[in-house]
Amino acid sequence: MKKSALLLLFVFAACTAWAQLAREEIFADVHRSAANYYAYPTPKVKLTPAPKGYEPVYISAYARHGSRWLINPDQYVKPLQILKKAAAAGMLTAEGQQALVAVDSVYRMANKRFGELTEKGARQHRGIAQRMYKNFPTVFADGAVVDARSTVVIRCILSMTNECLQLQAENPRLRIKTDASYHDMYYMNNEDQPSIQRFRHNDTIKAALAKAWEENVKTDHLMSVLFRDAAYVRDSVNVSSFVNNFFSVAANMQSCDTKLDLYRFFTPEECYGIWKYRNLEWSIRYGDNSLSKGMMPYLQNNLLRNFLTTTDSCLQKSVPGATLRFGHEVVVLPLACLMELGDCGKQQGGDANLLAEKWRNYDIFPMACNIQWVFYRKKNSNELLVKVLLNEHEMSLPIATEQAPYYRWEDVKKYYQKKLARFQIPTEK
Amino acid sequence: MKKSALLLLFVFAACTAWAQLAREEIFADVHRSAANYYAYPTPKVKLTPAPKGYEPVYISAYARHGSRWLINPDQYVKPLQILKKAAAAGMLTAEGQQALVAVDSVYRMANKRFGELTEKGARQHRGIAQRMYKNFPTVFADGAVVDARSTVVIRCILSMTNECLQLQAENPRLRIKTDASYHDMYYMNNEDQPSIQRFRHNDTIKAALAKAWEENVKTDHLMSVLFRDAAYVRDSVNVSSFVNNFFSVAANMQSCDTKLDLYRFFTPEECYGIWKYRNLEWSIRYGDNSLSKGMMPYLQNNLLRNFLTTTDSCLQKSVPGATLRFGHEVVVLPLACLMELGDCGKQQGGDANLLAEKWRNYDIFPMACNIQWVFYRKKNSNELLVKVLLNEHEMSLPIATEQAPYYRWEDVKKYYQKKLARFQIPTEK
Repeated sequence: MKKSALLLLFVFAACTAWAQLAREEIFADVHRSAANYYAYPTPKVKLTPAPKGYEPVYISAYARHGSRWLINPDQYVKPLQILKKAAAAGMLTAEGQQALVAVDSVYRMANKRFGELTEKGARQHRGIAQRMYKNFPTVFADGAVVDARSTVVIRCILSMTNECLQLQAENPRLRIKTDASYHDMYYMNNEDQPSIQRFRHNDTIKAALAKAWEENVKTDHLMSVLFRDAAYVRDSVNVSSFVNNFFSVAANMQSCDTKLDLYRFFTPEECYGIWKYRNLEWSIRYGDNSLSKGMMPYLQNNLLRNFLTTTDSCLQKSVPGATLRFGHEVVVLPLACLMELGDCGKQQGGDANLLAEKWRNYDIFPMACNIQWVFYRKKNSNELLVKVLLNEHEMSLPIATEQAPYYRWEDVKKYYQKKLARFQIPTEK
Repeated sequence: MKKSALLLLFVFAACTAWAQLAREEIFADVHRSAANYYAYPTPKVKLTPAPKGYEPVYISAYARHGSRWLINPDQYVKPLQILKKAAAAGMLTAEGQQALVAVDSVYRMANKRFGELTEKGARQHRGIAQRMYKNFPTVFADGAVVDARSTVVIRCILSMTNECLQLQAENPRLRIKTDASYHDMYYMNNEDQPSIQRFRHNDTIKAALAKAWEENVKTDHLMSVLFRDAAYVRDSVNVSSFVNNFFSVAANMQSCDTKLDLYRFFTPEECYGIWKYRNLEWSIRYGDNSLSKGMMPYLQNNLLRNFLTTTDSCLQKSVPGATLRFGHEVVVLPLACLMELGDCGKQQGGDANLLAEKWRNYDIFPMACNIQWVFYRKKNSNELLVKVLLNEHEMSLPIATEQAPYYRWEDVKKYYQKKLARFQIPTEK
């Protein structure tokens, strides 16, 4: 009784803290509002030592590519055109002029490199490899095979290359195989699933997003900072499109090594507002959200199955090594939900404000985000434990254990196998 | 007088040997007839020691991807369809049945991997890196930067990854940067040069190739080996298309680790004949050939210029490291001709038989073919020498030297700069 009272108190305290957390965290570092453009934050956590007698033997992982340039040239070109036109008409403020110079510069840097990995993105994967090796050296013993696979997208292949180069530097006797093939795309990034994807679009979702934009995205201040005349803005600028693109450029500026900054034209409250809208959009389109009928996590059916079967075959080997996969945030987010990692297992709803109190996408899928399954074997036994890291933080799984964050592999496997077997694509929308 | 007589004798002897060389070499190992599908042969030559006091300081290279699957699915599918149809009609011989099984198997292996690097291709680049490190260790000293760049084609990126992984294993303290960007394509594989490419197609070329096919590609024996009935072949098989594709599948079988073999259905003479035709085609389309007005080498204008300027800037550094580029045979062949490496500097003509006596494409652009410029600096001086390797064999340059294969960098640079400056694209066809 006493115990559960304490637990309740703890849960309550946690919820209260969480309620304010997103706003406070974004005010403390506005870069978090970038959501999927957020540069991978080097983890500063201490990992829980393994239960006595267990040592790491195998890692199976999926990682997103590191920081990159924006993919669609329009995200640079369109706000640039609007700023240039306003400049020609004498309608930019001094800040507006500075914004024009900054957008023009970053466009030149990104030109012919749209969607490509930046040097910062390469370093993120070097760092992940370094810590992986340091934390789990027994996985990367002499002669161990690292089976690295990427989607067919170049930024992912180069992320793989960087992570593998670092591992090879840590132990020159690792045997590393790399691949990036259409052959593996059905589980690496299975984009063609209309029967699930159709749940992403309906009138309720449209209305919820429109409401979230209306309530959270405030543009008057930004427009007055950049442009000299409200009437000009009203007549000559598609404000929502401009703000959307301009914020994307601002948010993604942290992807490269530059001192250029566009965030300074926004207030933290504006950034928090735009983030709230995008947080909801990502939850509906790729998370476990009631508006998309909880279907989106199942986009990663094949990937989770690949983790399960690959693990079982690799663990047959005396030196299992590692299976490293490289892909996209549109995969990591649904997978985290499908696996029910920590709060990702909870279904969310369509209110952006309530959501912001419970679910922060920048913790889940910054650039280079990753999910690592780390397997431990008891010496002279076949007892296997697994712990799962999300961005190198230990996560709870929806499975009973007496030694969290370590779980019996047999229990984890059964849970996910049953979950996958149970799933049926609904025929009705 | 005595000296030049000896020289003439030597040249004569060399020419006589050469005249028979292609046929003899293909008869000795029929895999050579694969031309650009020929698996990279591990070099067995001894390199000439550097002049006294000189040591290797920098390497600038361009390498083709390693062995790969055929790019166009039709190359597998079309002969497979013809064999299946004949099988259904009871028109295949016992050998034809075996050929059907083999083509069907290799098609299944290649499926969803068309154009992709094979494991054998990956090993070729590991080997090249290993020898590069062994032969020129001072280039890859602790802290040296390796600047590796690839075209945007995945088989090239993975070739780069393999070469870099091997270098990183050889020296974990190398600083390796990898990139594969549209940004660099103008020199990495500049495919859009209609003003030069138009010289590839004219009536003379058409006639020369038709004649070469007519004289060299003999199909009766192969058809009688595979099919039971000449009338069926005449009525139901597009023979030249079938032979072309079937030979490509046969030739490329050496790209993967399999004991399957289709070469056994051909006589060596047939292979030699098809090779002669393709040898001419490659010479006209990508080599220095009078029929294409000697224009094709200049497709690599930008690349040669990139070698020259990159070298000069890298040599400013105290530890110059290496610049490694990864691309395609359609680049290596014109570059070898533009640089006038060995016999590649001689302009050839449109007779397939004469050409076969002088020019063997399989020596120039097998899978993983590469051109390495190796720079040597004299200790405590700025005296620079360069030697150029084609597929790890020392090559002569069209420049005077008293210590071949070593050339003064200043002389080489001036020669190529002048050659590039002199070149003008003709306005007439």
